[in-house]
Amino acid sequence: MEFQTIGKSIWRIDGEKKVRGQALYTIDLKKDGMLHGRILRSPHPHARLRRVDTSAAAKFPGVHAVISRDDFPEGGPLSPYFGRRTKDKTVVALDKVRHVGDVVAAVAAVDLETADTALRLIEVEYEELPVVSDPVAAIAPGAPQLFEHLAEFKNNICHHTSLKHGDVEKGFEESDVVLEDTFRTPVTQHCHLEPHMALAWFDEHGRLIVHTGTQTPFGVRKSLAEIFQMAEEKIRVIVPYVGGAYGGKSHLKVEHLAATLAWKAKRPVRIQLRREEVFLTVTKHASVVRMKTGAKRDGTLVARLVELYYDTGAFAENGPNVVHKATLTSPGPYRIPHIQADGYCILTNKPSAGAFRGYGVPQVALAYETHMDMLAERLGIDSVELRIKNLLREGDRHPTGITMHSVGYEELLRKLGGEIHLEARRKGRGKKRRGKGIACMIKASNTETQSEAKVQANRDGTFTVFSATVEMGQGAETVMAQIAAEELGVPLKGVAFIPQRPDTDLTPFDAMTTASRSTFCMGNAVRRAAKNLKEKFFEFAADLMEISSQDLRVENGRVFAAGAAARGFTYKELAARHFSHNQNELIGSGFYGDEEDAKTVLPFWLVGGCAVEVEVDTETGAVKLLKLVGGADAGKAINPRLCEGQVRGDATIGIGQALLEELKFIDGQPVNASFLHYPLPSFQDVPDDFPVLLVEQPHKDGPFGAKGLAESALPAVPAAIANAIYDAVGVRIQELPITPERVLRALTEK
Amino acid sequence: MEFQTIGKSIWRIDGEKKVRGQALYTIDLKKDGMLHGRILRSPHPHARLRRVDTSAAAKFPGVHAVISRDDFPEGGPLSPYFGRRTKDKTVVALDKVRHVGDVVAAVAAVDLETADTALRLIEVEYEELPVVSDPVAAIAPGAPQLFEHLAEFKNNICHHTSLKHGDVEKGFEESDVVLEDTFRTPVTQHCHLEPHMALAWFDEHGRLIVHTGTQTPFGVRKSLAEIFQMAEEKIRVIVPYVGGAYGGKSHLKVEHLAATLAWKAKRPVRIQLRREEVFLTVTKHASVVRMKTGAKRDGTLVARLVELYYDTGAFAENGPNVVHKATLTSPGPYRIPHIQADGYCILTNKPSAGAFRGYGVPQVALAYETHMDMLAERLGIDSVELRIKNLLREGDRHPTGITMHSVGYEELLRKLGGEIHLEARRKGRGKKRRGKGIACMIKASNTETQSEAKVQANRDGTFTVFSATVEMGQGAETVMAQIAAEELGVPLKGVAFIPQRPDTDLTPFDAMTTASRSTFCMGNAVRRAAKNLKEKFFEFAADLMEISSQDLRVENGRVFAAGAAARGFTYKELAARHFSHNQNELIGSGFYGDEEDAKTVLPFWLVGGCAVEVEVDTETGAVKLLKLVGGADAGKAINPRLCEGQVRGDATIGIGQALLEELKFIDGQPVNASFLHYPLPSFQDVPDDFPVLLVEQPHKDGPFGAKGLAESALPAVPAAIANAIYDAVGVRIQELPITPERVLRALTEK
Repeated sequence: MEFQTIGKSIWRIDGEKKVRGQALYTIDLKKDGMLHGRILRSPHPHARLRRVDTSAAAKFPGVHAVISRDDFPEGGPLSPYFGRRTKDKTVVALDKVRHVGDVVAAVAAVDLETADTALRLIEVEYEELPVVSDPVAAIAPGAPQLFEHLAEFKNNICHHTSLKHGDVEKGFEESDVVLEDTFRTPVTQHCHLEPHMALAWFDEHGRLIVHTGTQTPFGVRKSLAEIFQMAEEKIRVIVPYVGGAYGGKSHLKVEHLAATLAWKAKRPVRIQLRREEVFLTVTKHASVVRMKTGAKRDGTLVARLVELYYDTGAFAENGPNVVHKATLTSPGPYRIPHIQADGYCILTNKPSAGAFRGYGVPQVALAYETHMDMLAERLGIDSVELRIKNLLREGDRHPTGITMHSVGYEELLRKLGGEIHLEARRKGRGKKRRGKGIACMIKASNTETQSEAKVQANRDGTFTVFSATVEMGQGAETVMAQIAAEELGVPLKGVAFIPQRPDTDLTPFDAMTTASRSTFCMGNAVRRAAKNLKEKFFEFAADLMEISSQDLRVENGRVFAAGAAARGFTYKELAARHFSHNQNELIGSGFYGDEEDAKTVLPFWLVGGCAVEVEVDTETGAVKLLKLVGGADAGKAINPRLCEGQVRGDATIGIGQALLEELKFIDGQPVNASFLHYPLPSFQDVPDDFPVLLVEQPHKDGPFGAKGLAESALPAVPAAIANAIYDAVGVRIQELPITPERVLRALTEK
Repeated sequence: MEFQTIGKSIWRIDGEKKVRGQALYTIDLKKDGMLHGRILRSPHPHARLRRVDTSAAAKFPGVHAVISRDDFPEGGPLSPYFGRRTKDKTVVALDKVRHVGDVVAAVAAVDLETADTALRLIEVEYEELPVVSDPVAAIAPGAPQLFEHLAEFKNNICHHTSLKHGDVEKGFEESDVVLEDTFRTPVTQHCHLEPHMALAWFDEHGRLIVHTGTQTPFGVRKSLAEIFQMAEEKIRVIVPYVGGAYGGKSHLKVEHLAATLAWKAKRPVRIQLRREEVFLTVTKHASVVRMKTGAKRDGTLVARLVELYYDTGAFAENGPNVVHKATLTSPGPYRIPHIQADGYCILTNKPSAGAFRGYGVPQVALAYETHMDMLAERLGIDSVELRIKNLLREGDRHPTGITMHSVGYEELLRKLGGEIHLEARRKGRGKKRRGKGIACMIKASNTETQSEAKVQANRDGTFTVFSATVEMGQGAETVMAQIAAEELGVPLKGVAFIPQRPDTDLTPFDAMTTASRSTFCMGNAVRRAAKNLKEKFFEFAADLMEISSQDLRVENGRVFAAGAAARGFTYKELAARHFSHNQNELIGSGFYGDEEDAKTVLPFWLVGGCAVEVEVDTETGAVKLLKLVGGADAGKAINPRLCEGQVRGDATIGIGQALLEELKFIDGQPVNASFLHYPLPSFQDVPDDFPVLLVEQPHKDGPFGAKGLAESALPAVPAAIANAIYDAVGVRIQELPITPERVLRALTEK
């Protein structure tokens, strides 16, 4: 199949606007008469609320509204509860605060200074409670309980997933080699440059309007509908361009506070979090992963036991889903007859951990890919070959029961190895030693979620794609336009796609822009919508030409008779003919995720990997990346440049997570929640030699074979770096970040 | 057929919002960073533009943009031309100015004061030209020409409609009585309390966004697309509540100026016209109508000759359509074998006349209904009986070829006569004499225009109606909700209709909110959309219940099996079931005005009348209205209270036109273009006794039998009053307004 638009590295539609500074983000929005909201947050990691008195703040000149638990009386107009699975969160704390930064009250005032002053006038009496901030300690008998009243959160465990396949004990008995190790990763944060921000108001019809940089406009709408106890459709969520998200902007973050203040003040309210507040709003799960791996002498994997202890902080948030997904793929992309994996999502007195690029996989990939490297060394097998020997292959059944499909691991691993000449090692001898490492990863998609799209023919022959996929830097706007253009048979260049941004009133339902799902799920919806519209054009043209629409073809925006190319009409001509008689919409609809899809569509796997060459300074412990190659199976790269950008960006976050990042807490108190103290990777930290490798194993159900790939590199990066460090200096670091201190300590203890 | 919602005087949906001052109008809108626009207008009625120099204004601090003819070079990005039929208007004057108030330039500045100052810095050199301000003088040989370069506007005639039926000369020969008179009406103005206003900007995607209180959102979009030479769909027109319109807010009025300034300034621009500018922007056609009527001794009408000279001011605007429509119904609602009518739309150096409630009919109704009264007197026949004798009746062919249907004139005339006890005259003897008068009218609809609507089922079982019909005070929002509720079978009360206002991105195409067309055209579209959605629900319910959807009924929001009412589901339950599995839209679509409709739908006639009792002060000439009854055939009154409000409001404008209003010009210079000097009817001028009569002759194609009625009273009011004055004091006033001076002069000359 030859493509016109698919597979071409077309420049992104939003590129020029962004480069010129014209693109608007939520942060750019203002509304006439708007107030500024500020939030009073708990200074304690765990405390009972004795008294919250907002009366002085409410009276302060310039203050229009103060909200606290007093605004949520039993049976009142607002319900304070929300949450992804369990409604464990409240708009403001009701009885207890459970982490530093937990929301106690909020103020809307004419300016930020007034709001800040008013915050200081709110009197709060706390009764401090014992704090638990380690996930393993939190599940020990006698640990302080975060939710005494919720039976489902007993022992601070808010979720447990178990994956069982074969008989793992028997497997270890049959193994020639057994490894058993513990791996640790810290709390990190998404660090999207645009902080959480929302601008909300109630319009004259009583509708709630919210502008917010969310990844989940329809999810925000649903949760707000629950809080305000009104029809979802009475709420309108509008999403401008989003300045980075990585999972940190899904579901309610700040929207409910802006909306509640707007409700009380009867004025628009804007809340923009300060950076410190962003750190306290959502984080990535710290983890302790225990892994036991058994293999035959020839390298055949026999058994794997995994225990995942994920620190989800003070509320369940997305944690249960993260742990569930992570547990199911925790054995890695390998054929292992005996598997037992248990994942625990554990509450502690820290800020909530939620979705973060990779969705729990990086924590386990560090474990399984370190074990593959250890095994290869132990058995004297090439580490690429060992992996390839054990891979789950096309047609295999994953332990979850899903058939493996579009999994280009072998090609990817060989190419990754080739890129860094894994076979040719030159470690050096001096203080600076070089090493090479490789790793791969597997992550499940969430293709069971739904997306709807529309494609509209405009009066001048151009088209508009209506898709609620959020453009947060990934290039979805461009990819959707390419998919629509290909299906319609029009050149993208020269055919203006009039943009429609996500707006729950305008763009049909989309589950969310997360989990690398958009190209697959929304891509299918857009393709179907384009097809539906194309068919309408075909029927119209067939009528005009008095032939069957079956006999029509389209190319370069022109519909013509197969075998008689001179007979035909351009879309522009057809649109003009339609609109010269009728002004009703010429629109195609496409829905992905119905019952039929659920029965027939094979979910896709994120297939990725990383190869790296490092130089370790044995005197300082510093690790320098000489070369890093990120790779992924794109299924079909709709736009190779955008795919490469995604993989490179993903790998860059991986570098931060591997070597630098940790949000530190002392007794539940964050100590480095600022960009000054929290170390993010800069240009100094990424290698000059930083290529991206794409392989393409078309997915039978993906639009034009495509699938998601935006989380394919990150999870493999820490393991690849750790493996390269071992290759360089012979020490295994099993805890992130791999700081110079940790390397040096390991070298010293060696 | 028993209705649940139709025919009930439900309180209007927008009522509370408006009473509480919560409803937003364009005038309430502001946009962050917006500039204020002001317009430089010609002080001369006719002049050549020698020089327009904006350089000093452009340099003035605080000025962001000045536009003049220099911004429209040949082949430039903007086309200056627009217009309803002929593109005779330009954004700013290019070579000539043609009326006082013609737009020469415009300025956008940080505030109004700066903009006003900048206007004074624009240097314009005019070469004054001879002025023509009377329509009859304008078509005389040698009159100054407004458009030398447009052949189609030769002799200042921009349109001529001719209606011929039978042989009018022969008819007069056969007549026993022949009347011949000339009637005159002045320029008046709509005087909507909310002035013209627009707020426009280009968004970061290059789309043009315009908020404006227009009656024609899609018309504005189309014209702007021509000026900016971009796809219509790249422009978004949003219409909040409109504070009165009456035809004065159709098509471009101020939107193009705000948009052009925004384009040049690269900032949002708000323009709100001052009241004087409103008077100079659009008016109602002054007219000279010559009418010759021939009848048999028994009152049978035989022949009618009509000449209409309509003063359309400096540009064609809507004039050609107004004159066309007025000419076609100028013989009145009567069966006349011989007819000749010629309507001329004539250019003069006055502000443009456009659409105005009644659309050219009031000018001719004054003529034909005065003649009916004169004839009745002359022949000694009761004036109601004379009319009834000659009426066009159900099934008759109108001279235009359209079949008469839903024309309840006889019932209406008898009831109107009864209301004022026309038979019982008590004129009085002193200085104050009383008299009674009656009149009716006919106006054609424009049902050939198109409307599309959607009805959406919301997740909580409520519904949303998507209709671009503009709510400008007439109550359309409520009527559309009633139609949808009736068709769906849900109670309006208790079922929230979530409002969606007109927005060209959100609500499907609607031709316009004019000509009393909305209840009929959009009403049909809404009903079809509701039916389409109902059918989807029926199919879904039929599947669940395993019966045929044919066997389903709906009542009170519950779908059930015919004959087994216990088996069924509420819409709420069905919506919940749908959305628990699928998140795709549950929407019904309805389109009115396609080819099928064009073939089968019978256009409707506006059928109305007025009866009045007056008291004339013979010393001062003052006319006091003791009682006025407005009446109309509603087809079926969807909401009787709203119908009555429409008829009463319409009659009130008629009172103003009959007795008070005239926008005066001296040599093309307006002399009373302000609310201080232009006399509008106040509560003192409307009678205490002011009932409304509705008759209902269901229209076969109207939604539930309904049709438009909002222009049914006004055209009959001046004739009814003139007839009553004759009845009181024996003088015929044939020129509006009927001021005390005119009455007194007539009494003196008698």
